[in-house]
Amino acid sequence: MNFSESWPMWIQSPIYIGFFGLFLAAFFYMRILALPQGNETMVRIAGYIREGAMAYLFRQYISLTIYAVVVFIAIFFALGKEAAVAFLFGAFLSLLAGYMGMKAATHANVRTTEAAKEQGKGGALLTALDGGAVMGLSVAALGLIGLGSIYLMFKESELLSTVIHSFAVGASSIALFARIGGGIYTKAADVGSDIAGKVIENIPEDDPRNPGVIADNVGDNVGDVAGMGADIYESMIAAIVAAMAIAITSNAKQLNYVLVGNSEFEANKWAAIALPLILSALGLAVSVICIFIARAMKNMNPATVLRGSLILPPLLLAIVSYLVMNILAVTQAVTAIIAIGAIGGALIGLVTDYYTSSTPVAKIAQASITGAGTNLIRGLAVGMESTAIPLIIVVIVAYLSNKYLGLYGIALSAVGMLGGTAVIMTVDAYGPISDNAGGISEMSGLGPEVRNITDELDAVGNTTAAIGKGFAIGSAVLTVVALFSAYNMEVAHVREANNLPPLSLNITEPNILIGILLGSILPFLVSSTTMLAVGRAAGAIVEEIGRQFREIKGLMELKAEPDTKKIVDIATKAALREMILPGMIAILSPVFVGLLLGPAALAGLLAGSLAVGATMSLFMANAGGAWDNAKKFIEKGKLPGHKKGSDVHKAAVVGDMVGDPFKDTSGPGVAILIKVMSVVSLLIANLVAKL
Amino acid sequence: MNFSESWPMWIQSPIYIGFFGLFLAAFFYMRILALPQGNETMVRIAGYIREGAMAYLFRQYISLTIYAVVVFIAIFFALGKEAAVAFLFGAFLSLLAGYMGMKAATHANVRTTEAAKEQGKGGALLTALDGGAVMGLSVAALGLIGLGSIYLMFKESELLSTVIHSFAVGASSIALFARIGGGIYTKAADVGSDIAGKVIENIPEDDPRNPGVIADNVGDNVGDVAGMGADIYESMIAAIVAAMAIAITSNAKQLNYVLVGNSEFEANKWAAIALPLILSALGLAVSVICIFIARAMKNMNPATVLRGSLILPPLLLAIVSYLVMNILAVTQAVTAIIAIGAIGGALIGLVTDYYTSSTPVAKIAQASITGAGTNLIRGLAVGMESTAIPLIIVVIVAYLSNKYLGLYGIALSAVGMLGGTAVIMTVDAYGPISDNAGGISEMSGLGPEVRNITDELDAVGNTTAAIGKGFAIGSAVLTVVALFSAYNMEVAHVREANNLPPLSLNITEPNILIGILLGSILPFLVSSTTMLAVGRAAGAIVEEIGRQFREIKGLMELKAEPDTKKIVDIATKAALREMILPGMIAILSPVFVGLLLGPAALAGLLAGSLAVGATMSLFMANAGGAWDNAKKFIEKGKLPGHKKGSDVHKAAVVGDMVGDPFKDTSGPGVAILIKVMSVVSLLIANLVAKL
Repeated sequence: MNFSESWPMWIQSPIYIGFFGLFLAAFFYMRILALPQGNETMVRIAGYIREGAMAYLFRQYISLTIYAVVVFIAIFFALGKEAAVAFLFGAFLSLLAGYMGMKAATHANVRTTEAAKEQGKGGALLTALDGGAVMGLSVAALGLIGLGSIYLMFKESELLSTVIHSFAVGASSIALFARIGGGIYTKAADVGSDIAGKVIENIPEDDPRNPGVIADNVGDNVGDVAGMGADIYESMIAAIVAAMAIAITSNAKQLNYVLVGNSEFEANKWAAIALPLILSALGLAVSVICIFIARAMKNMNPATVLRGSLILPPLLLAIVSYLVMNILAVTQAVTAIIAIGAIGGALIGLVTDYYTSSTPVAKIAQASITGAGTNLIRGLAVGMESTAIPLIIVVIVAYLSNKYLGLYGIALSAVGMLGGTAVIMTVDAYGPISDNAGGISEMSGLGPEVRNITDELDAVGNTTAAIGKGFAIGSAVLTVVALFSAYNMEVAHVREANNLPPLSLNITEPNILIGILLGSILPFLVSSTTMLAVGRAAGAIVEEIGRQFREIKGLMELKAEPDTKKIVDIATKAALREMILPGMIAILSPVFVGLLLGPAALAGLLAGSLAVGATMSLFMANAGGAWDNAKKFIEKGKLPGHKKGSDVHKAAVVGDMVGDPFKDTSGPGVAILIKVMSVVSLLIANLVAKL
Repeated sequence: MNFSESWPMWIQSPIYIGFFGLFLAAFFYMRILALPQGNETMVRIAGYIREGAMAYLFRQYISLTIYAVVVFIAIFFALGKEAAVAFLFGAFLSLLAGYMGMKAATHANVRTTEAAKEQGKGGALLTALDGGAVMGLSVAALGLIGLGSIYLMFKESELLSTVIHSFAVGASSIALFARIGGGIYTKAADVGSDIAGKVIENIPEDDPRNPGVIADNVGDNVGDVAGMGADIYESMIAAIVAAMAIAITSNAKQLNYVLVGNSEFEANKWAAIALPLILSALGLAVSVICIFIARAMKNMNPATVLRGSLILPPLLLAIVSYLVMNILAVTQAVTAIIAIGAIGGALIGLVTDYYTSSTPVAKIAQASITGAGTNLIRGLAVGMESTAIPLIIVVIVAYLSNKYLGLYGIALSAVGMLGGTAVIMTVDAYGPISDNAGGISEMSGLGPEVRNITDELDAVGNTTAAIGKGFAIGSAVLTVVALFSAYNMEVAHVREANNLPPLSLNITEPNILIGILLGSILPFLVSSTTMLAVGRAAGAIVEEIGRQFREIKGLMELKAEPDTKKIVDIATKAALREMILPGMIAILSPVFVGLLLGPAALAGLLAGSLAVGATMSLFMANAGGAWDNAKKFIEKGKLPGHKKGSDVHKAAVVGDMVGDPFKDTSGPGVAILIKVMSVVSLLIANLVAKL
């Protein structure tokens, strides 16, 4: 093999840039810890939240350790010790990223409140951003270090494909449980304390008398920080692994055009395997720059700062890619694909933003005038309609990327879309930190001035998160398409190596059609189980809060303290118990279908779940976001004649209540479901292919 | 070709049995007309309903004539005059069946009221059943006569496949418009007059002061009689055509086992083409027997009578098939497939029945205690969960049928499931007749005794309809699978005939994946547009009713008459206007994708829309049914401590309101969507295949 001399240096860049990212994360964490925490009440309340969040995390980690040990043993015997260790490594880094991010978030929340009190908006924005950046940098850095080191260790080995698949299964399955468990926790606590507090007892949100308020704030951390962190870590890993897997298995002609002026197949393949890692490392580097740009602009309009910092990284990455691909003597088709992915992701974000904050939201608010029924019909219709344009954009991105570099190009476009992973996660973690800051301010009685600042920061976080979601959703669908192709290529590869006849993956094969129908059920089953889980857990919380108000004398008069730990405990146990069934459906269904009905049915299963999962996750996420904002639209007095507390507002609250599990539990659960199914299939392709 | 001598006679059986069915329909119609209509008020109100329904039908027919002429011209130039005429014939028979059924239903409703008053339950049941039987028999008979005569005319012609595809496109596209238009009408009138009457003006259901009540009753006829009739006529045609199309294009070995002791390919193929028609004719014959059995049992428990008459025909058909296949020297694998289809359909019906009337419904009612939000979350979860078992049953039926006779077997299983078409439609039309009878009784002030009888008959119709739905949904999915395969076989056939290289329909082809993603959007778009259409039209009706109560002096005090025609007019115009967009999406999307992206993308489009459409239609139909019955559960006082009018009941009403368009507009719309897309693709396969 002969090509550009700088390659050996560049393939180490994920490790170097990864450690640099970790170093910065530590720096931001230290900065946060050095900030003042405010008065005693604030410290105490923040302590409750931190304690509850950490207690949940540890109990979740214990449950997941049992799962990890079982799977470790299974992989050990089925695929060997290297694969088993890689699985554990992928899983462990996911847990570590979640731990670091949540540690930072639960320290940053109270300091954001204090900064809002003492320094005003700019200081509070900076504190919340720095807190989020710990998570953002950890997620991207740990992903790069993990996958980058595995790559360096196994790059000359036959085992490379198996170990990266195992690593991805570790990352994905932990993400699945963390996201579903966290999603159930946060929504059960949110819906449960809202019904009990606002609806039944008639006390305001975040009122210190409500025993569920601490759990609600804990939920923001375990769901929107730790759960989301595992999710985004997984997205990045899955996108990179999909591209690497296609490069490893591919013998397609397209790969021969990766290197300019070098048509040696092995060299091109080698470059194609390393490229996604290098691009992701460059993505982290530009993300760091964007985080510092955002910090420097702290005194500008927060919405502009956050929006800009989300859209910038993929575009910057395209520019950097242009320079680096030149150095590496790699085709600029890669840069074109990165640019297409960046534009596509940004457009999907804008469309998501439109459906969850613009005219459609005003129409949902309008529809609330004739009652909850019409609010719901309108919200469901908005969510359904919102699936179309994003998927059409994904199709265009896939089509163009495929024109340039085939299926490998499709996988690279997902890597490009996730160039800003660190920033996406920073903004995502910034949201719950500001939300918590508001809760702490309310519970500590700091008055409306502080609350207004934290509310504004929180609101900005909510709407700009839509843009981050654009990149996340677009890349998820592209990743699944790529993983799906990688699975089928792997099956073909294994059959050829074992002298088996090639498998007909013709879409009219009865086995494929049967797989498609079975696959189409799974997103509905996962949605159903997670919705019911939230409903059940919220019901238990409502009951316990009611009991406390009845039995703890003086609670309503502020003369006695609520038993907040009891609610935290109920939410924790419910989330851990309820995450098992949907998690098992996701992980075991490809295994069972693959082993019982064979590799073609498994391919169908993936295709069917992709079709339903892509649309369902968009539908639920956007309907939920739109209902939430329609409620806020009325609360802000934007619907003339109908204000907070009116019947119209109550109708909008019903929509929001349905939207809560839609957008934060079931929708994200379905999005991970289809990725987990794909990586699990890729891992077992070797076993299934021979059936 | 040499085989059993009786074949020439048997291939004419669809015509003979069809005309016999028509004759019986005329007989039942005469019997209905001869029955007494009751007092003057009843006659007047029934007149309003009939007038409104017929006015709608004629205006719908005018709109559809424009559509039919355009498509006629397009087909004429693209595929020739025979195909164009066949299209018109298929469309015309659909309209004719709808007209005859609605004529009968709008005469039977008032006579059912009168029978309930004079003869009690048995007489009323018989009248409603006879009214429904006119529709049931017309639908099955016209389908058989139409398709049977086309077959006889073209059976030796090269054009056979084109003309039957055209005939199916005529039937399917009219069904699509009739079902969507009728669905929008009925739900807009229902929801609109409920909100205005029960919620805003606080007057009971079907109160004569409510200007929307006539429109509501008209809606039952145009939606649940004419719309449903076109739908079921289409189902039967599509199932038969799918089987015939596979037989025509097939060169698979499986067909060689159709005839016992005859391995001549042409003979087997010839038999396989005629068989679905003969089986359907036998289905009509056994259905007639079952209708007479049901009539004879009029004094038994209505639920038992209806349930039995739905489950019996496919089972009887299996027995008759055993005898006839023996005579025809056809393999008894056919009988096995018919039996499997019959059992599968009945099981799906029972599962549907479970989800829409048993424990899940009680739990939705229970969830209403904590408000509309929890009622909705529970209902959505129930609907989502309910997709799993029916589709697993479909998969098992498909798997077994495929084992026996390949893809042709899968198509035959759908034909078998629809063996009881005439009875399914009879029971389906019986429902709105009883419902109308109740409305007429209320508006004529006949008192609670009569109303109780009609209410009971109506309730029985609602729950037993679930069983009919089982056969309809199961056969729809199987039919689409078969049509999908037929499309792909046709494409392969055309390419071979034109010396083009075979098309790769490998599921990992980027074009197929792109098609799958695009296809997955369509059911969501059709659901969204139809939900919004219902919302908009209902809003306009609420407004107009409010205006009448404000401006017509003395209306509330029964001193003035409401302007019911105005509401009928609003609903009519809205339905006709709003059916265009979803209808066009369904018909044009395969044409555009096929012509622009080619035959492989079109195959993907069909697969994607099948995956999403099958699950979405089950989800919406069952969630809607469950919400409806949860509301009734509370109304019947089955939820201790919470009765009609309580807050808990109001929460359940919200769920029912969302469920209304789900189950009667969007859900059925999506089910037809995937069939229309398949038959349109089949028709244009010839043009698209060469791209």
